[in-house]
Amino acid sequence: MSTIVPATIDFDGVTGLLKGPGVLQQFRTLSDLVGVFEDEAARSSMDPATPAYSVRTLLPVPEGKEGGLFFGCTYLQPGLVGDEYFMTKGHFHSNRDTAEFYWGIEGEGVLLLMAEDRTIRAEQIRKGSLHYIPGWTAHRMVNTGDTVLTFGACWPSDAGHDYETIRREGFAARVKKGPDGPLVVEG
Amino acid sequence: MSTIVPATIDFDGVTGLLKGPGVLQQFRTLSDLVGVFEDEAARSSMDPATPAYSVRTLLPVPEGKEGGLFFGCTYLQPGLVGDEYFMTKGHFHSNRDTAEFYWGIEGEGVLLLMAEDRTIRAEQIRKGSLHYIPGWTAHRMVNTGDTVLTFGACWPSDAGHDYETIRREGFAARVKKGPDGPLVVEG
Repeated sequence: MSTIVPATIDFDGVTGLLKGPGVLQQFRTLSDLVGVFEDEAARSSMDPATPAYSVRTLLPVPEGKEGGLFFGCTYLQPGLVGDEYFMTKGHFHSNRDTAEFYWGIEGEGVLLLMAEDRTIRAEQIRKGSLHYIPGWTAHRMVNTGDTVLTFGACWPSDAGHDYETIRREGFAARVKKGPDGPLVVEG
Repeated sequence: MSTIVPATIDFDGVTGLLKGPGVLQQFRTLSDLVGVFEDEAARSSMDPATPAYSVRTLLPVPEGKEGGLFFGCTYLQPGLVGDEYFMTKGHFHSNRDTAEFYWGIEGEGVLLLMAEDRTIRAEQIRKGSLHYIPGWTAHRMVNTGDTVLTFGACWPSDAGHDYETIRREGFAARVKKGPDGPLVVEG
């Protein structure tokens, strides 16, 4: 007779809380987002310790392993730098031909997707929306709401993160607060 | 200026309902589970149209594509065949070295994991539990509760399903209703 072992990792589908042994936590403040916003003067005038987002991840296998998967949840704060909403750094996968799923848990925002030819697609993310991010596609999340935007993610363990291309070249569009809601402004 | 396109796929983290364009639905009845339960006479005496489980899947890329991902949700009915709980067929991945995540959304059950050497691990699954299924590991879900067991899943698009090995060799353990709850009985 075998025993039934309790699950050790919790993922709350309602709040998005991911916790348990091996779950890593990373915190990003505005000081980690130098050069990300158009109005760098506005960013640098704000408290650099302002929380921008945190990420909890479960990496059950080493980074780079083929055939494995990682799981995570991101908690993106609401806020503005000038007229631009708080957002994640954004990245391509280092292994370009690897995909990712995102799903909205709480809050509202815009998922910016950018192909290698810099073509932009902006998808609304909300509680209960599911998003497939194909390979060769940079992805950045933007919180356009007044509350924390929480979303889940699952991606291959050999995807890797190429933040450098986005740091150097940026995205081809920005999401700004307009008079009637968020605007995706290209260029 | 780009438009913000609404998300087209819904995944409800509370109920597990997955729907939208391209979401496939598969239904399994007891007639699809010939040879799965120890007491085949008990199974064959039951209405073959009895629903056992259904699966909703989103396959954004062709099966077999490397680097892509699939997403799904399974709704496993409660019930007994003899003293054995309703369960899924169970499978290895055809591409053995590919992993999968499962997470519990509603109900309660046991995730049976079996290595290639037939070593068994039985994990309790419940609302809010997250499970990593490593490569080389057959997986079968068992509903030990009185309500539908709903769980989400994400797996690589080149994983494939090897049901045949399990059909031929079975799992090395069965989950049965005991006097004080579920028992994992080996052999």
